Amino acid sequence: MSFSHRLTEAVKSKGNAVLVGLDPRYESLPDTIKTGNAAESCERFCREIIDIVSPLVPGVKPQAAFFEQYGPAGMIALERIIRYAKSKGLIVIFDGKRNDIASTAEAYAAGILGEKSAWGADALTVSPYLGSDSIDPFVKVALERDAGIFVLVKTSNPGSGMLQDLSAGGQPIYRHVADYVERLAEQTDGSVGAVVGAVWAKQISELRSVMPAAWFLVPGYGSQGGTANDVRSAFRPDALGAVINNSRGIIFAYQKTECSRWQDAVEAAAKKMIEELAAAEHTRTG
Amino acid sequence: MSFSHRLTEAVKSKGNAVLVGLDPRYESLPDTIKTGNAAESCERFCREIIDIVSPLVPGVKPQAAFFEQYGPAGMIALERIIRYAKSKGLIVIFDGKRNDIASTAEAYAAGILGEKSAWGADALTVSPYLGSDSIDPFVKVALERDAGIFVLVKTSNPGSGMLQDLSAGGQPIYRHVADYVERLAEQTDGSVGAVVGAVWAKQISELRSVMPAAWFLVPGYGSQGGTANDVRSAFRPDALGAVINNSRGIIFAYQKTECSRWQDAVEAAAKKMIEELAAAEHTRTG
Repeated sequence: MSFSHRLTEAVKSKGNAVLVGLDPRYESLPDTIKTGNAAESCERFCREIIDIVSPLVPGVKPQAAFFEQYGPAGMIALERIIRYAKSKGLIVIFDGKRNDIASTAEAYAAGILGEKSAWGADALTVSPYLGSDSIDPFVKVALERDAGIFVLVKTSNPGSGMLQDLSAGGQPIYRHVADYVERLAEQTDGSVGAVVGAVWAKQISELRSVMPAAWFLVPGYGSQGGTANDVRSAFRPDALGAVINNSRGIIFAYQKTECSRWQDAVEAAAKKMIEELAAAEHTRTG
Repeated sequence: MSFSHRLTEAVKSKGNAVLVGLDPRYESLPDTIKTGNAAESCERFCREIIDIVSPLVPGVKPQAAFFEQYGPAGMIALERIIRYAKSKGLIVIFDGKRNDIASTAEAYAAGILGEKSAWGADALTVSPYLGSDSIDPFVKVALERDAGIFVLVKTSNPGSGMLQDLSAGGQPIYRHVADYVERLAEQTDGSVGAVVGAVWAKQISELRSVMPAAWFLVPGYGSQGGTANDVRSAFRPDALGAVINNSRGIIFAYQKTECSRWQDAVEAAAKKMIEELAAAEHTRTG
């Protein structure tokens, strides 16, 4: 079953489009989790997060940097977390923003994507600066393995405009990337998608209109400032076509609540986001 | 001692600017190396390469993808290879083309750069699509640790023009990136540099003239088509300011020679490249 199809099924079965970002910043972990070395603590924390959110949401997005920073021990933790999340039925998007020339891109793709790969992820984020021949190998491997690719189009950081908003031929650079990604989405039945930051409501709406075939992975909800209203135009009329990621706002929710157990704060934050998205959708269609 | 200073010293002491790219593609390894699992074979191969080239060249550039593709086992091999290369006095440039929003970029940088980091690399390649606030954290951590950063400016792949050559405000995108990197190079006394592909002789010359402060990391020599004549304008008048990377052309040289030992072919290929660069330099200055 294609990635696009599996993602659709996961969103439908959970009734929401929330992705929980696994960004286990050691300094933010609850004190009770900080036993053993940093990589072990991060793994234990992510397992608990997965236990809490797997009945609620369709997927998780582990951020490679927060594992890679601990060296090989962190990468062992990442591989275990991916397997564990998949065993719980979650879609796993490896957020690595990988990119390289063709033969090297193929090595990244082959290693990261698919049930039998070393990392076993369902999808991978990739960065487009090197151009189409650096992205095509990711797409080729992804299709062979029923996996997906999300290409950075308009990212959520404040400085994303430096290159992405430069105008070339009357269009911002992100629109050039968007046109390319949309063609790939059409050719792959939606298994190639776009990363579009939650904080850019206007661009989300613009990009949805020119990218009808692509799934959107929308980071930046919550702590980075994106709201349910900002992201609602990411969805297609059938309420599909986008997954909205929240990392710190869910996994470190305990820092901003009075819950006696940190796990309760995580569960409450995930449920709150699900409700916020549903309410915004109701406003749009109601 | 700053990265720029250490790199200068390494190039001067070896009398050449050759980087050997460590891209251990399993299928290309000599049969005698293919014992044990793939990650172990790659590690053994890279150790032998380092033994051969460490008396000859200033540095090596391990390509993260060819280790990451084997999962955690490959990452363990990568960490060992980096430590081993450094123990032999080589400058190690971690070719990961990492990129992310600010707080995540800082995690990558902190993990990868510096003697006491998890990976212990001297420098890291980074991809600029997310803009300045995604690069600044890499620079900050690099400076704290006497490490370096090489930002992709004009890459060696045939399709690099798709985004990099688009014209915005009368300048190609790669020139916008170049101007930004040059400012960082000036501010960091040369510890932030640029990746400029060996196959683009004209752009190398153009970029050297507008980037006098930046070190160039020039990939694409040899198998990708770049020649000594193509890259000679990457150097400053003092024959410094650039390191030229050759991966397959050196480490898999045995496939194209009659040497009875594969190690002899590697040594001969490294020496041949050193001579080619010296001859081109002599033509330029002689």
